[in-house]
Amino acid sequence: MKRSFGARAAAYPLPVFVVGSYDHKGKPNAMVAAWGGICSSDPPSIAISIRPSRYTYRNLMEKMAFTISIPSAKYMTEADFFGIESGENTDKFAVTGLTPLRADHVDAPCIAEFPVVLECRVTKHVKIGAHTQFIGEILDVKIDESMLDSEGKPDLARL
Amino acid sequence: MKRSFGARAAAYPLPVFVVGSYDHKGKPNAMVAAWGGICSSDPPSIAISIRPSRYTYRNLMEKMAFTISIPSAKYMTEADFFGIESGENTDKFAVTGLTPLRADHVDAPCIAEFPVVLECRVTKHVKIGAHTQFIGEILDVKIDESMLDSEGKPDLARL
Repeated sequence: MKRSFGARAAAYPLPVFVVGSYDHKGKPNAMVAAWGGICSSDPPSIAISIRPSRYTYRNLMEKMAFTISIPSAKYMTEADFFGIESGENTDKFAVTGLTPLRADHVDAPCIAEFPVVLECRVTKHVKIGAHTQFIGEILDVKIDESMLDSEGKPDLARL
Repeated sequence: MKRSFGARAAAYPLPVFVVGSYDHKGKPNAMVAAWGGICSSDPPSIAISIRPSRYTYRNLMEKMAFTISIPSAKYMTEADFFGIESGENTDKFAVTGLTPLRADHVDAPCIAEFPVVLECRVTKHVKIGAHTQFIGEILDVKIDESMLDSEGKPDLARL
């Protein structure tokens, strides 16, 4: 027997995607995307949802580039902070002590300490109600050596 | 130290979203979406990626409606089958013994035995490389009583 919960934005599991971008002055910023996920295999693409009021929204529209950095469990506090504060008023990297690192393939910073990084160029943006979905072509996936197994493949348990 | 894995459609965790739809004759079908996830809160919306060659693609374009049924662990074998076979040649419900149940709010079937169901109407479709992303407004979320805690809230551990 099922119970109805009405119209809700509910699905699981929820990943933590920290979106890295530069503003027009080159200041690095990072925020937690409300939602995101892979949306095509060819070209490999990821979709992230961001409200137009967010600082990152303007950065992505200008630079058409972003990174996704995925934290390990020990950085959950810092990831939370990226989700709460706005880069408009705060240098989130200075406060958290984390290191913005310029991506190799796109004009955006990733978070050096996080074990998984995707480098993406924006190929599309789609307005969906309160959020705009940015589609990013994934130009590179980087994974920390510590998350690889003895054969050099990503170890899902460690991730 | 990070290792580069190049351009890949890689992110985690991956949910199992079984997409239910009717064809033009009213025959129910279900498939596993390659990828999907919530993409806006207002209206609550979910995005799923489907290749144009899939039977479900035609159903969604015609009916502009679908459900997402999320299996519990004991139905993983059936969910796998939904992902492998095509509804063009197979009655997947007959083979798996699962029950298609007409949704309350949209012209699409859900899977009665699966504990979580979202009922969605298509509000947008966006071509992204090899896949088309269907955006569905979530009109209802239904959760089996067995997945609720003593206060009637979804129990994430059971889900």
